[in-house]
Amino acid sequence: MINRLRELIPEPALRRLPWYLAYVTLLRERGVEYVSSTAISRGINVDAAQIAKDLSFLDIKGKTRIGYEVELLEHKLEEFLGFRKRHRAAIVGVGSLGRALMQDSGLANYGLEIVAGFDVNPDLIGSQWFGKPIYDVAELSERAAGLDVEIGIVTVPVEYAQEVADHIIAAGLKAIWNFTPYRIQAPEGIVISNTSIYAHLAVMYNRMLSEK
Amino acid sequence: MINRLRELIPEPALRRLPWYLAYVTLLRERGVEYVSSTAISRGINVDAAQIAKDLSFLDIKGKTRIGYEVELLEHKLEEFLGFRKRHRAAIVGVGSLGRALMQDSGLANYGLEIVAGFDVNPDLIGSQWFGKPIYDVAELSERAAGLDVEIGIVTVPVEYAQEVADHIIAAGLKAIWNFTPYRIQAPEGIVISNTSIYAHLAVMYNRMLSEK
Repeated sequence: MINRLRELIPEPALRRLPWYLAYVTLLRERGVEYVSSTAISRGINVDAAQIAKDLSFLDIKGKTRIGYEVELLEHKLEEFLGFRKRHRAAIVGVGSLGRALMQDSGLANYGLEIVAGFDVNPDLIGSQWFGKPIYDVAELSERAAGLDVEIGIVTVPVEYAQEVADHIIAAGLKAIWNFTPYRIQAPEGIVISNTSIYAHLAVMYNRMLSEK
Repeated sequence: MINRLRELIPEPALRRLPWYLAYVTLLRERGVEYVSSTAISRGINVDAAQIAKDLSFLDIKGKTRIGYEVELLEHKLEEFLGFRKRHRAAIVGVGSLGRALMQDSGLANYGLEIVAGFDVNPDLIGSQWFGKPIYDVAELSERAAGLDVEIGIVTVPVEYAQEVADHIIAAGLKAIWNFTPYRIQAPEGIVISNTSIYAHLAVMYNRMLSEK
């Protein structure tokens, strides 16, 4: 049932849910017990009708006048977003960004457990970073099953993005989180999620020019 | 003239330009001299007509049959995207992500120069990270002009996002690059750019469920 609902939710709505979650967590920490979509709207600057519509995809009902129970809403949001499950992942490319992600304990709160790193640098191979082993990228296929990873995180320089993605797919992983600006090509059934912080920079610069 | 063009380009097109740039840089490094939109299309898996249309916003013309000059296209893309200018920025929140951004030399290739960090932690204040000073966040207003920064990068825990943004705006900075999932509120004229990696995680998990 949850799976059916997930497939029905439009991606823009799905992308807004983490905003509500961040705000609801804040309210819970402040000891607030109930919140209406109107109150969320004031808090995070999103249209109240939009919020109510987005939250209708969740298995939760607000009460007339008092709204949603804060703790329950937080729980339902985390569950719906997949943040309450463990998703095991490996970093490929233990450079500055790769290391930052390996040491970011915040990701575990969002269901991502990075269990190992892979690199080509002989100085790194065989060492550990924040308690996580770093292996030779050539061993990805043989180690993937033992590590029980389903997500490969690509943090290599852009020119190696496709090659590394091919290794990840050959190793039987199901999803690639791509931090390079390269558009990775993959067969059907492999999930590719692109996070290009440089594209965000370009949009920001452009808007700064328009404001001048 | 460039400014007028910038305002005309739709944001989805602007977001795609860094993909083309990454691919064109790769071609230049491989010694390729000319490239057509059809060849870019095959390389990065984006519709060729779309690519040609997006590139029409740039001040560059392809030649019949042989296409765009690779080096010139790379230069024009970097220029249009604002990556050839220096944009001075300060990190607010020198935690794991903040430190990673301060040490990421890659950002400089995209026009972002992080010149200082700000934090509340007395153990960090007065120290340096990768040669960049870390100051007390309470000193943001008095230091901003001397540092000549125009962008504040918010890498604090979510519950401090708005408070820190208010400090950044009060200090006279023009743009906020927000890495928290909180929807920061700001007066007109302040550019807010949101990069929430957790929203990307949620979308990835959701698509992984759909593929099962």
